[in-house]
Amino acid sequence: MTVGLWLIGARGSIGTTVTAGLALLSAEASDLATTGMVSELAEFEGIGLPSPRDFVIGGHDLAELPLKGRAEELVQAGVLPAFALSLVRPELEATDARVCPGVQGGGRAAIEQIQRDLRSFSYQHGLETVVVVNIASTEPISPVLAVHESLSALDEALTAGQDPLPASALYAYAALDAGLPFIDFTPSMGAAIPALDELARARRTVYAGRDGKTGETLVKTALASMFGSRNLRVSSWSGLNLLGGGDGRALADPSRAEAKLASKARSVHETFGEDVAAPVHIDYVEDMGEWKTAWNQVRFTGFLGTRMTMQITWQGCDSTLAAPLIIDLARFTALAHRRGRTGALKELAFFFKDPLENSEHRLDHQFRQLVSWAQNLNPEPDRGTTVEHSAQTRGHVGWPGRKMRPAASQVSGHPSQEPA
Amino acid sequence: MTVGLWLIGARGSIGTTVTAGLALLSAEASDLATTGMVSELAEFEGIGLPSPRDFVIGGHDLAELPLKGRAEELVQAGVLPAFALSLVRPELEATDARVCPGVQGGGRAAIEQIQRDLRSFSYQHGLETVVVVNIASTEPISPVLAVHESLSALDEALTAGQDPLPASALYAYAALDAGLPFIDFTPSMGAAIPALDELARARRTVYAGRDGKTGETLVKTALASMFGSRNLRVSSWSGLNLLGGGDGRALADPSRAEAKLASKARSVHETFGEDVAAPVHIDYVEDMGEWKTAWNQVRFTGFLGTRMTMQITWQGCDSTLAAPLIIDLARFTALAHRRGRTGALKELAFFFKDPLENSEHRLDHQFRQLVSWAQNLNPEPDRGTTVEHSAQTRGHVGWPGRKMRPAASQVSGHPSQEPA
Amino acid sequence: MTVGLWLIGARGSIGTTVTAGLALLSAEASDLATTGMVSELAEFEGIGLPSPRDFVIGGHDLAELPLKGRAEELVQAGVLPAFALSLVRPELEATDARVCPGVQGGGRAAIEQIQRDLRSFSYQHGLETVVVVNIASTEPISPVLAVHESLSALDEALTAGQDPLPASALYAYAALDAGLPFIDFTPSMGAAIPALDELARARRTVYAGRDGKTGETLVKTALASMFGSRNLRVSSWSGLNLLGGGDGRALADPSRAEAKLASKARSVHETFGEDVAAPVHIDYVEDMGEWKTAWNQVRFTGFLGTRMTMQITWQGCDSTLAAPLIIDLARFTALAHRRGRTGALKELAFFFKDPLENSEHRLDHQFRQLVSWAQNLNPEPDRGTTVEHSAQTRGHVGWPGRKMRPAASQVSGHPSQEPA
Amino acid sequence: MTVGLWLIGARGSIGTTVTAGLALLSAEASDLATTGMVSELAEFEGIGLPSPRDFVIGGHDLAELPLKGRAEELVQAGVLPAFALSLVRPELEATDARVCPGVQGGGRAAIEQIQRDLRSFSYQHGLETVVVVNIASTEPISPVLAVHESLSALDEALTAGQDPLPASALYAYAALDAGLPFIDFTPSMGAAIPALDELARARRTVYAGRDGKTGETLVKTALASMFGSRNLRVSSWSGLNLLGGGDGRALADPSRAEAKLASKARSVHETFGEDVAAPVHIDYVEDMGEWKTAWNQVRFTGFLGTRMTMQITWQGCDSTLAAPLIIDLARFTALAHRRGRTGALKELAFFFKDPLENSEHRLDHQFRQLVSWAQNLNPEPDRGTTVEHSAQTRGHVGWPGRKMRPAASQVSGHPSQEPA
Ligand SMILES: NC(=O)c1ccc[n+]([C@@H]2O[C@H](COP(=O)([O-])OP(=O)(O)OC[C@H]3O[C@@H](n4cnc5c(N)ncnc54)[C@H](O)[C@@H]3O)[C@@H](O)[C@H]2O)c1
Ligand SMILES: NC(=O)c1ccc[n+]([C@@H]2O[C@H](COP(=O)([O-])OP(=O)(O)OC[C@H]3O[C@@H](n4cnc5c(N)ncnc54)[C@H](O)[C@@H]3O)[C@@H](O)[C@H]2O)c1
Ligand SMILES: NC(=O)c1ccc[n+]([C@@H]2O[C@H](COP(=O)([O-])OP(=O)(O)OC[C@H]3O[C@@H](n4cnc5c(N)ncnc54)[C@H](O)[C@@H]3O)[C@@H](O)[C@H]2O)c1
Ligand SMILES: NC(=O)c1ccc[n+]([C@@H]2O[C@H](COP(=O)([O-])OP(=O)(O)OC[C@H]3O[C@@H](n4cnc5c(N)ncnc54)[C@H](O)[C@@H]3O)[C@@H](O)[C@H]2O)c1
Ligand code: NA
Ligand code: NA
Repeated sequence: MTVGLWLIGARGSIGTTVTAGLALLSAEASDLATTGMVSELAEFEGIGLPSPRDFVIGGHDLAELPLKGRAEELVQAGVLPAFALSLVRPELEATDARVCPGVQGGGRAAIEQIQRDLRSFSYQHGLETVVVVNIASTEPISPVLAVHESLSALDEALTAGQDPLPASALYAYAALDAGLPFIDFTPSMGAAIPALDELARARRTVYAGRDGKTGETLVKTALASMFGSRNLRVSSWSGLNLLGGGDGRALADPSRAEAKLASKARSVHETFGEDVAAPVHIDYVEDMGEWKTAWNQVRFTGFLGTRMTMQITWQGCDSTLAAPLIIDLARFTALAHRRGRTGALKELAFFFKDPLENSEHRLDHQFRQLVSWAQNLNPEPDRGTTVEHSAQTRGHVGWPGRKMRPAASQVSGHPSQEPA
Repeated sequence: MTVGLWLIGARGSIGTTVTAGLALLSAEASDLATTGMVSELAEFEGIGLPSPRDFVIGGHDLAELPLKGRAEELVQAGVLPAFALSLVRPELEATDARVCPGVQGGGRAAIEQIQRDLRSFSYQHGLETVVVVNIASTEPISPVLAVHESLSALDEALTAGQDPLPASALYAYAALDAGLPFIDFTPSMGAAIPALDELARARRTVYAGRDGKTGETLVKTALASMFGSRNLRVSSWSGLNLLGGGDGRALADPSRAEAKLASKARSVHETFGEDVAAPVHIDYVEDMGEWKTAWNQVRFTGFLGTRMTMQITWQGCDSTLAAPLIIDLARFTALAHRRGRTGALKELAFFFKDPLENSEHRLDHQFRQLVSWAQNLNPEPDRGTTVEHSAQTRGHVGWPGRKMRPAASQVSGHPSQEPA
Repeated sequence: MTVGLWLIGARGSIGTTVTAGLALLSAEASDLATTGMVSELAEFEGIGLPSPRDFVIGGHDLAELPLKGRAEELVQAGVLPAFALSLVRPELEATDARVCPGVQGGGRAAIEQIQRDLRSFSYQHGLETVVVVNIASTEPISPVLAVHESLSALDEALTAGQDPLPASALYAYAALDAGLPFIDFTPSMGAAIPALDELARARRTVYAGRDGKTGETLVKTALASMFGSRNLRVSSWSGLNLLGGGDGRALADPSRAEAKLASKARSVHETFGEDVAAPVHIDYVEDMGEWKTAWNQVRFTGFLGTRMTMQITWQGCDSTLAAPLIIDLARFTALAHRRGRTGALKELAFFFKDPLENSEHRLDHQFRQLVSWAQNLNPEPDRGTTVEHSAQTRGHVGWPGRKMRPAASQVSGHPSQEPA
Repeated sequence: MTVGLWLIGARGSIGTTVTAGLALLSAEASDLATTGMVSELAEFEGIGLPSPRDFVIGGHDLAELPLKGRAEELVQAGVLPAFALSLVRPELEATDARVCPGVQGGGRAAIEQIQRDLRSFSYQHGLETVVVVNIASTEPISPVLAVHESLSALDEALTAGQDPLPASALYAYAALDAGLPFIDFTPSMGAAIPALDELARARRTVYAGRDGKTGETLVKTALASMFGSRNLRVSSWSGLNLLGGGDGRALADPSRAEAKLASKARSVHETFGEDVAAPVHIDYVEDMGEWKTAWNQVRFTGFLGTRMTMQITWQGCDSTLAAPLIIDLARFTALAHRRGRTGALKELAFFFKDPLENSEHRLDHQFRQLVSWAQNLNPEPDRGTTVEHSAQTRGHVGWPGRKMRPAASQVSGHPSQEPA
């Protein structure tokens, strides 16, 4: 069954790396290519994950530079291997043709536009489902409003022509309302408000987030168990992140960095306690290109009160670290959806700095949660594969969740009435 | 029940810190003091571990500087808190009086001397058992001989007046033969030869080792799971250790460093594979005092083959890190012995760089092994607490294992014939 | 000739270390004690510097904890050697008795209060001069006002009962107006406004500043010549400073940190160019105690455009680094004053992050400036050592500059009219 | 005037980068390309250095992989910019055609072979002179023999068919004997024996060395003045160097590494004193490719004996750092030769880890030595440009030094008799 992978921010560094990576994975069975993919570990063999070859990619973006141009930049920057470019060029071009302009207005109209794009993608490729992943630039922190507290309040506001949602939440609403899985790899609002949790459960779909854990926080949460199991007390964990690239440029805006920093600090406090000093900074340093250096100093106390220090320098390529996780998340989420899960996939905490509905930050515990959850995903019959669906949709296995949103669609003249 | 803690190398940095630490733990219930003690974690509550107050310390050493003098040096060096000195002085002096000269010759005579010292310690304090811990200077690598392969061959060689064992193994032999638990916190031979494993099982006692895991290797094995669960491939793990102190001075001798380096490299290769480059160095830098800096560079490969780098600077105080583990090991080992375990305690791998009979190096896995083992230690009736024993030994609960070594003792006029 | 050393912030970490240090230097001729003192280098032998024993210390402070108590804290923190405490206790107590309450109000009244304190100190100890050094907590950045532009405008504002000067500038005014040398070791305003430069020259005295260069910036300016002479182009220099102590606590206030950060960034831009990215942060991390860790990443470009990276971790004890420089500065400044120099001592740039009237930041160049200046300080007859002075002032060699400020004193009813 | 640049090890990483670099410098006037070239600094303008365009490259090598292939590898490794390859391909091919097989035997025959190659290069291109630079793999340490002490003893041994010189010294002999400048950029013996110093002076030519200073030692000697001018005492300077590439592979051989380590340690001891602990290691870590990470820890003592720490991580590309220095050295040496200097060019210490006949290691002092020496290079008439020479040698301006070696050539049937 072909599954759609819809990337909000498809022409960014991660989006380009995901696209090139999936193309390379299909082109060659190189062992090296799957390095960094969690879903390729032995623990997940035989549980029914869709194959990387099962995905077709589309997305939204505000940028105009096509995937091919972006990929050339990433080769220059040492993110993509030079040899790869010729191999994946056709796939980059094909995918780029499936990238729609990102929404710029707001409110119900934007949601409907997004859903039209999603539906057209789904129909065109006869997709079982479409996993929507937010990898757009981090938004400034959005205030949490009263209308975010329930779906009815939110729908009322939207119907009244209000615009209470930042772009990330518009995409989340559109996806969930259409019964599609939604993943937020950024610290933006996305689906992380009660109204959208309600929507996900009402439409019997899933969501996961938020803020991919790929560097500094990955290390923090890996070391958390070391300090914990040795009964050593962390008294401060200070950090500086230097990065270039598009993400760095976006985060040079303090209001955007704030969201990211909040997400980073939360993980320290939830892991080591509120009284642990955890200053952290992000700086845009253009000459870092697509690379990031994170430096961390940990101070901890041992036997009889002696203070000691550990310092970590992490020099990683963010897109290389993030891209395989996007594929992992798409695979796990598509499977969970197929197996009838609904609501927040809190067992995917392993992938996130700020895991939704889960305050377990220790990486080893998160991994065991993931493994046992994945291994026990009920092999129920696939959702939405009923004959009528197929019949109705010319080979397309269900514009998922179509039948489940009468209320909302009545209110809003919802796109699910289409594609008449 | 009072338990003996017999430290080979009692007047060294670790020995002094253990002694001062146990005294402080008894003097005050400060939360800070137990920091760094694994056995104080909630996971081990109620499983029947002896209390830190249950221990009385003795030991062997070649050094003459008494514990009090050594402790003053450690205060200067920032290892022990200055305020502690006056509180623990009496205990340091009392313990120092129980330190016997370390053996310098070899063979059967040395073993008997050690056993006489152990027995006299045991009788004097009416001890349930005596946990013998090797924290003497690391020995040069000893060749593994044919006579190490079986107890009978070894006993034969000893009887023939040969001297096939380095000091660490003499201590191990003496302890195990007397039915006492033996722990090797160093990379020396200790009990790690088949003949001594046989001896431990024959005398129904336990042993554990080897080479305490307190710094560079602790971090390595904590991060192993991070790389593993993220499917990132480590291609090299290079390291430099700079340390002063007595341990540093001993390791300045290349033949001694070799043992330590072998133990460090083994953990990388067993964890990440034989083809991972793992150069590691130890340098004695006198001005480091009792502190150690370990710097490590890890190179790893991610998605599509991109290479990345992580560097770690660990600035720790080795004795502070090691001392609480010695207490932990004594508690776990005493309990295991009491509950009738015999042979290698491979579930204590968590504590060691080069765990005996266990090639699991990942810290989180080791911790779970430890927890589940400890929580399931059979609460059988304590060993050796039968009435006759008590009667025979004036309140002393059994010179453990006494009855079990007729053969050896016949051959050697073994001390177990005493203390008639 | 005895010289006064008047410390604004005398009970702070640096003040305490200076006092203990000078006492130790007098108590013993230990070579170790003078380590870190630039003025002890062979280059400055025989040029006529006052000896460390020639100084008597007094000062202002807002804090109540006496020097002895502060010194005990510094011993705990590893700044002062434990053995030193008993040796220097008497001197700490004697000095503490000479510490006056820091000014808290502003305007002319404050200036007069400061001058009364200075004069009384000078008379009591029969001082040749008094070098006033600002080592008080860094102030928030003060706006530069129009009245700062000339002495007459400033005096007019003061006379009109206005309060246009932050505390650091009040102290500077008081000192300079009294003909005394003034040194600003902080990034506060101090003497760095045209009006005070005018005042210094009018009173024929000297001043120097600002912001002592003891760590991160020291290294930056030491490496500047390396990159420069190898024609390597620095493209970014990013930094994070983690510190505890009183200075750290003060700098936790963003408005104070701003002054310090401006001073740090200026040195990068003046050295490497305006377009070099130079983000820098200061965080108060309480568990650092009196120590500081500064981490820096330098990115630079070499032949054919290849980018490379250098990272530096500096782990220093700020007061230990600063205290000897305070003594150096007092010695150089006292000598320059004695030899008739006036105005800004720009040749002392070597000591400062933000050198006044000097944009040379390269450490080696600054050192050569210092050496050649110091070696050529004209050995003219000492100022103010005429017989009449001595006669008039009962052994006290002149309340320096007394006769030289008729204009200002007429305008302001200035304390220089006293001590009639 | 065209000058020859003869590279021993022309097909290695440095050789390839020098060749590509000079070609790029000629192709475009990009400012970026000259980054890293000391001789391009304003200080050396107008002193008469030959231009980079004046050089024609040839050399010896044992390797077969042509320069073009090597350059492609260097592009992959991020040493050379990808765009460069097409620009410089013709020049790489032309130069490769001028690379002769390196000598493999020894003794007089080898010397003669080298001279034949040099002479043929010189004639073919009508060169003013040929600067011979050793950038071949570092040799194992060669024992210093009695026959190295004087030219006559050495010549006698060679005449007697002995083989007392390692390859580097054979090349040096050949060059100097032919009156050509010789530079040793490696720690090999090269010209660093009395006999060859005698030879250089006899033939009125110059030599310089040894072991290019491009990373760890560059930083050490840059910081030396910082510690020195601040009167801070370095007590240890420990280091680890991790590198891949051809140089790394060669240095994986402990007997070769020994030469390099000796050169590194010497610079610490000559700078900071013999009692400073200076352990240093080099490891071949294949996955580093053409990059090097050097980590250093410096411990130093400040005021009142407080110990502090500085750590440095240097992540450089050795060939990028070395190549421009080779060009610099060729330019300075050619000019010095032209201006009639003879013997060791000790004022080039700035470029070397182990400067010949100069124990000044402080980078800033070395730079000033270089500048003042270069600015005072006597603009005498060029050597060897007499008419007869030109006539004799078909436009070739003197096979330099030809007339000056009657003694040696009589003894040895020296090639200078040719090219009859
Ligand atoms: N790379 C990592 O390791 C990592 C980890 C955690 C989170 N993230 C987050 O992932 C996101 C993507 O990172 P990146 O490095 O690819 O950034 P990028 O800047 O290269 O790409 C972001 C893309 O999003 C597009 N975009 C912005 N606003 C949009 C909108 N409203 N609708 C549609 N497209 C929009 C931009 O045009 C751009 O092409 C960022 O928010 C980043 O913070 C990345
Ligand atoms: N501290 C750690 O983190 C750590 C970790 C792993 C292993 N170790 C090992 O623990 C051991 C002790 O470390 P330390 O820092 O206390 O060293 P130390 O040098 O301070 O003490 C060692 C003591 O052993 C004594 N000794 C030497 N040979 C002896 C013998 N044959 N019999 C009796 N006593 C003898 C010495 O006299 C000395 O007092 C070393 O082997 C070290 O390698 C330490
Ligand atoms: N230590 C260094 O390396 C270094 C380098 C450059 C600059 N400085 C600056 O030196 C200053 C002193 O540093 P420290 O570590 O001693 O700080 P500290 O906090 O220990 O001491 C500062 C002292 O100043 C006193 N003070 C504050 N305001 C005052 C006022 N208006 N009048 C009189 N006293 C006042 C405080 O009570 C305190 O005792 C700071 O401004 C710091 O930024 C220090
Ligand atoms: N790159 C630096 O920063 C730096 C600094 C100081 C010294 N060096 C020294 O420069 C030398 C070259 O470094 P590299 O990175 O180019 O090494 P490389 O291994 O890439 O090149 C060395 C070349 O020398 C050739 N060679 C070996 N023996 C030879 C012989 N007898 N005759 C002729 N050619 C021979 C090899 O075939 C190879 O092509 C090494 O000795 C290195 O230690 C380099
Ligand atoms: Na959470
Ligand atoms: Na300036």
